[in-house]
Amino acid sequence: MALIVQKYGGTSVGSVERIQAVAGKVKMARDRGEDVVVVVSAMSGETNRLVDLAHQIQERPIPRELDVLLSTGEQVTIALLSMALEKIGCPARSYTGGQVHILTDSAHNKARIRDIDAARVQADLDAGRVVVVAGFQGVDEAGNITTLGRGGSDTTAVAMAAALKAAECQIFTDVDGVYTTDPRVEPRARRLDRITFEEMLEMASLGSKVLQIRAVEFAGKYNVPLRVLSSFEAGEGTLITFEEDGMEQAKISGIAFSRDEAKLTILGVPDEPGVAYKILGPISEANIEVDMIVQNIAQDSTTDFTFTVHRNDFPRAMEVLENTARELGAREVLGDDVIVKISLVGVGMRSHAGIASKMFETLAKEGINIRMISTSEIKISVVVDEKYLELGVRALHEAFELHGEDNA
Amino acid sequence: MALIVQKYGGTSVGSVERIQAVAGKVKMARDRGEDVVVVVSAMSGETNRLVDLAHQIQERPIPRELDVLLSTGEQVTIALLSMALEKIGCPARSYTGGQVHILTDSAHNKARIRDIDAARVQADLDAGRVVVVAGFQGVDEAGNITTLGRGGSDTTAVAMAAALKAAECQIFTDVDGVYTTDPRVEPRARRLDRITFEEMLEMASLGSKVLQIRAVEFAGKYNVPLRVLSSFEAGEGTLITFEEDGMEQAKISGIAFSRDEAKLTILGVPDEPGVAYKILGPISEANIEVDMIVQNIAQDSTTDFTFTVHRNDFPRAMEVLENTARELGAREVLGDDVIVKISLVGVGMRSHAGIASKMFETLAKEGINIRMISTSEIKISVVVDEKYLELGVRALHEAFELHGEDNA
Repeated sequence: MALIVQKYGGTSVGSVERIQAVAGKVKMARDRGEDVVVVVSAMSGETNRLVDLAHQIQERPIPRELDVLLSTGEQVTIALLSMALEKIGCPARSYTGGQVHILTDSAHNKARIRDIDAARVQADLDAGRVVVVAGFQGVDEAGNITTLGRGGSDTTAVAMAAALKAAECQIFTDVDGVYTTDPRVEPRARRLDRITFEEMLEMASLGSKVLQIRAVEFAGKYNVPLRVLSSFEAGEGTLITFEEDGMEQAKISGIAFSRDEAKLTILGVPDEPGVAYKILGPISEANIEVDMIVQNIAQDSTTDFTFTVHRNDFPRAMEVLENTARELGAREVLGDDVIVKISLVGVGMRSHAGIASKMFETLAKEGINIRMISTSEIKISVVVDEKYLELGVRALHEAFELHGEDNA
Repeated sequence: MALIVQKYGGTSVGSVERIQAVAGKVKMARDRGEDVVVVVSAMSGETNRLVDLAHQIQERPIPRELDVLLSTGEQVTIALLSMALEKIGCPARSYTGGQVHILTDSAHNKARIRDIDAARVQADLDAGRVVVVAGFQGVDEAGNITTLGRGGSDTTAVAMAAALKAAECQIFTDVDGVYTTDPRVEPRARRLDRITFEEMLEMASLGSKVLQIRAVEFAGKYNVPLRVLSSFEAGEGTLITFEEDGMEQAKISGIAFSRDEAKLTILGVPDEPGVAYKILGPISEANIEVDMIVQNIAQDSTTDFTFTVHRNDFPRAMEVLENTARELGAREVLGDDVIVKISLVGVGMRSHAGIASKMFETLAKEGINIRMISTSEIKISVVVDEKYLELGVRALHEAFELHGEDNA
């Protein structure tokens, strides 16, 4: 009998009615002959309610006690879902993270899973029960309750699937799969039937907020086939898996983008060893994360240096950079926070030349000026003015033939 | 350093503000040089909210899952109280029932404590921390979450005190102690400084809802001095302890009463062995609890048999008894559900004759007819018409000199 792990997020279990609907979906899988482990989040709104209580007492709640508090959210859901399953004739048993020994490190509020004792779960499965596990939580070696941080339930599901050698880990969300790009920008965006772990990582980190990055990494590491599908509609969703040899691979899988970008340039810095560190060291000390970094070749023993940060960090980053410029005797500091990043993602670009030039040509035809370029093995990112975001995404979607057949 | 266990009920921790007030009281004890273990209930209203969620799914929720659900209530409180303690400079650490191995049997919803592993708690105390423990909950041998039933937090507190050999177990409630009788009936009722375990048991089971009977039994069994005091006012409360030799003992400690009584009489049943069983067997099979039982001596080979039940069970009990009467060929069945029970309680009555006759004389003087009488070693109970409740309690309170000096 195939074993699958299903994960339902906070919106999917946001009310008693929705919990009952989830029970119905689980029962359907059972009726298909599958063994099912269900991982659930707290009912939507519950975690915020609890955080709110804590904040009434401490601005920065003690991490250990915050975990004791927050972990109750999922515990409520597992009990209610188990009741709903039993009610429709589906024997079930609930477990907290501690009860199935989801062992984590002791980093409260952002713990990482080290190990899961699958024996207890397996015994229940063997007895014909659905096992309902609280997501997002675990215990450390000393038995303290830990939580994995926001969205950690995805990671719990993948870890359970890995520990139980499940055939598939299904993440039920409020979207019906991973799309070639955001359908709100390009209505002809197409749901992908398959995508590789690497592509999904690039898509997720670039703003497709379907899955937690850590869960995708985890699934890739333990080779757990991951499927994203809708809690509310029928459909096969998107399967995230390893690249298969011989599978005809599209050159490009999708177009990701990010609106919250800002770029900073320092002009005329001395072209000498260590200058990059002198510029980015103070930025990092100010706890600002840097995304793209570009340095042009030197002219006249000076060079220009550009990088991007999250738009929220822009004012502080400018301040830090202006200090640095004075210290280095740089010529000028420039900043721009009305820019966006558009990225083509696809494992196919490894073996296909000409992707980059086609991308640049497409944008040029539309009169879109490229401000920065950065590439990785399966991704090309460009920075353009914010006003060109929709135009750029749609032009690229068309040029790389990403439209669905139905709605092309 | 003396160790005390403090228990705060749902009303005492009913809001963030009240939790902060509790933290203040705990810190006062710390500042007096005491080691403190705090046992808390769920915030008032929370348990009902959770039960409500369960009932939206199942009329009779699965006991195991109901315990998983309900135990989150106390878990929220322990986290918030620990934060509130840390905030005022009082190092604290929270534990669920499972984390301190409050081992119970597997009777979900009404489990009984078997053992507590005090080592972990002791280690925290030795490190100078306040230990905050979730009341009402434990785990069975297999690690399933169990709850002790309503009011079980009192029992948790007493069990912790016994396991840690605490100097005292303090139960903070919304009353400031145990009174000679209900002050709403007799405004001159006096708070008792001390009362014995036996007396407290009789008072509690007769309707003084200050403490859970099981907690008192437990405290008596393990010789844990128990103190009832107010969460909201200063004061010494009432100490519940063993009778001390040489202590001058009042004859009567208090007057308990119960309004929710009903009595049933079956007249003219054959006076033969086994008849009591034939009458009460069907009642017990209908899950109706019987309190007082009186059988008069036989006349003409038949006898009359009277017993009392909770008023809610009266209609069903009448139905059952009328069936029985037909089967036994009894003459008649009588019922009365406008009666009450008044009881004198005091260990002093063991050594003092004449208590009963003084009681009957006092009631007779007021024209109160006694319908039933039942006695135990430290209690005399009478059943009277409901309309006489206040008059009877006040007359007895006066006759046995229970008034306080201040408000006599």
